[in-house]
Amino acid sequence: MARKVPQAGEQKTTIEDIARLAQVGRGTVSRVLNNHPSVSDETRARVLAVIEQLQYSPSLSARQMRTDSSNLVGFVTDEVITTPHAVDLIRGAEEALREVGKMLLVVSAGYDADATQSSIEMLQGRRVEGIVYAAMFHRSVELPFQVARIPVVLANCYIEDASLPSVVPDEVSGGYNATRELLEKGHRRIGFINLDRFRNIGMPPLAAATGRLKGYRRALEEWGVPYDETLIMYSNQLPDQNAQLTRALLNLPNPPTAIFCGNDRTAMGCYAGVTSMGLRIPEDIAVIGFDNQRLIAEGLYPPLTSVQLPHYEMGRWAVEYLLSFDADAPPVQHKIDCVLVPRESV
Amino acid sequence: MARKVPQAGEQKTTIEDIARLAQVGRGTVSRVLNNHPSVSDETRARVLAVIEQLQYSPSLSARQMRTDSSNLVGFVTDEVITTPHAVDLIRGAEEALREVGKMLLVVSAGYDADATQSSIEMLQGRRVEGIVYAAMFHRSVELPFQVARIPVVLANCYIEDASLPSVVPDEVSGGYNATRELLEKGHRRIGFINLDRFRNIGMPPLAAATGRLKGYRRALEEWGVPYDETLIMYSNQLPDQNAQLTRALLNLPNPPTAIFCGNDRTAMGCYAGVTSMGLRIPEDIAVIGFDNQRLIAEGLYPPLTSVQLPHYEMGRWAVEYLLSFDADAPPVQHKIDCVLVPRESV
Repeated sequence: MARKVPQAGEQKTTIEDIARLAQVGRGTVSRVLNNHPSVSDETRARVLAVIEQLQYSPSLSARQMRTDSSNLVGFVTDEVITTPHAVDLIRGAEEALREVGKMLLVVSAGYDADATQSSIEMLQGRRVEGIVYAAMFHRSVELPFQVARIPVVLANCYIEDASLPSVVPDEVSGGYNATRELLEKGHRRIGFINLDRFRNIGMPPLAAATGRLKGYRRALEEWGVPYDETLIMYSNQLPDQNAQLTRALLNLPNPPTAIFCGNDRTAMGCYAGVTSMGLRIPEDIAVIGFDNQRLIAEGLYPPLTSVQLPHYEMGRWAVEYLLSFDADAPPVQHKIDCVLVPRESV
Repeated sequence: MARKVPQAGEQKTTIEDIARLAQVGRGTVSRVLNNHPSVSDETRARVLAVIEQLQYSPSLSARQMRTDSSNLVGFVTDEVITTPHAVDLIRGAEEALREVGKMLLVVSAGYDADATQSSIEMLQGRRVEGIVYAAMFHRSVELPFQVARIPVVLANCYIEDASLPSVVPDEVSGGYNATRELLEKGHRRIGFINLDRFRNIGMPPLAAATGRLKGYRRALEEWGVPYDETLIMYSNQLPDQNAQLTRALLNLPNPPTAIFCGNDRTAMGCYAGVTSMGLRIPEDIAVIGFDNQRLIAEGLYPPLTSVQLPHYEMGRWAVEYLLSFDADAPPVQHKIDCVLVPRESV
């Protein structure tokens, strides 16, 4: 990886040097560096040739070298990732940074406290301007690391004592929006196959499960529909369990006409359960999912109405919070709505 | 984001300073910095307090500041991402880097040539040691950017003239492995719902579609099973199309006993088609998917046997190639096998 390195005492190349050698103005060099379309191909080629010849690196200009800012933000994740959510978080953070000429340093640290701590230290060593710590499912965390002197924000997780700022999905809004959609279409008996509240042994109840149930109940209450506990099931996502729970709901003496599924995978099993009883979606039973995993929601037939988790928005929000960080303000605990994504299953 | 910045002429803090003030040995400071478990809580706290007091950043040690290496590798993606694949590529690259104390700078550049070029220049400005350019589906690319003086490797894509090194899935091995699994279970009439070869208008035929068909034919040939074109269907992934193609295959005068699906979403539709005809998987019809999207494969009942795309491995390979880059060697065109992931649908 041989590369010409400026030596101590060696004059640093400036935009002026390039402009002079390429026989163009300084502004033209800037426009070439920024890929502005107003430069002719011929001029662009000449400027690029000079840049190449001088081995000039635009982003390490003298001005930037003098500032304290690294223009980097660190992003630490907790988990080996099996859903597209993580990507949306990273993408939201990365796009918000790119708009202001900064970049994202990504580290996955697993659930290991030592690995997390050493990732944080690596990022501090890079003088990142801030750190986003992102969990792959919405949960409370114990303070997973020690960090000094730079702002940290939690994304898709939070600390019970609210001592760090956080951004999480508003699960209640999601449960409410799903249930309201069914109520507005005239359904009054609405089954709910929720995520098992205690899916993760030794952890507090799933924020997703308790929040969505709360939203479901709130919507029923607004419409004056009594809450019926027999319509609530919990799924551990075992093979065929979601289809079985669906059949159990549909075999009740007073069965539901719609089923709200705690996630899109649950809805996959629900579709199979409905189909196995010779019923049609949505004519006989309306089904609604959660997570808006497009791979599933668009792949099912009919395409699945679902609720969007705001991963992209959380990534953006976290970065924007860091970039305008005020050490004197109390740590914000921010929630973002989970909006409905209508398709054809309701 | 106030932060104490060492001023010119100011003495830089060393590990020795910390050791002296914390009244421990130099090795103990190292162990604390590396989160080694052999340090008592009391000692660790004392060392961390001194580190905090001196605002010491371990990774920016004098030794590292003197080297030319940025310890950074750039990662540029082409696309708004809707599958978990991108994450596996990033994770593979990131984990390989972390093992050698380096980090990944991630930029998503879309399909816009200017944005791609300016991302590359930002990364060059950071003096990254190399750049991974990753496509989100396996395809050939026109040279999407100009890059000078640092190694570049293409992941999940390649250039027709092989002028840049690349790592891609061995699609032929994937088609072969899927078909062999069915042949070994005794199937001789094997339907294939392939991806539409020309799904992406204006692009060359999908590498995935042509490669997997080649592997399918190779396996049939090895087993002495004649190739029957009526068993091959192509899907555009329109709503309900995969279920319809499945029913079309099963309604043939001489129907298949097994169906190989070009991806896991196709298999979702295939399951629905099989179920709608009152048939069972795998007793009446064996089904196999491709991509090993766990969200789908583990969510279907019975769980779907699929074929793994080597995204994690491609991410690792790309980084390891960059780290041992030899400018004098010809650009390697590397393929990684797509292995079978058996579940319960065959």
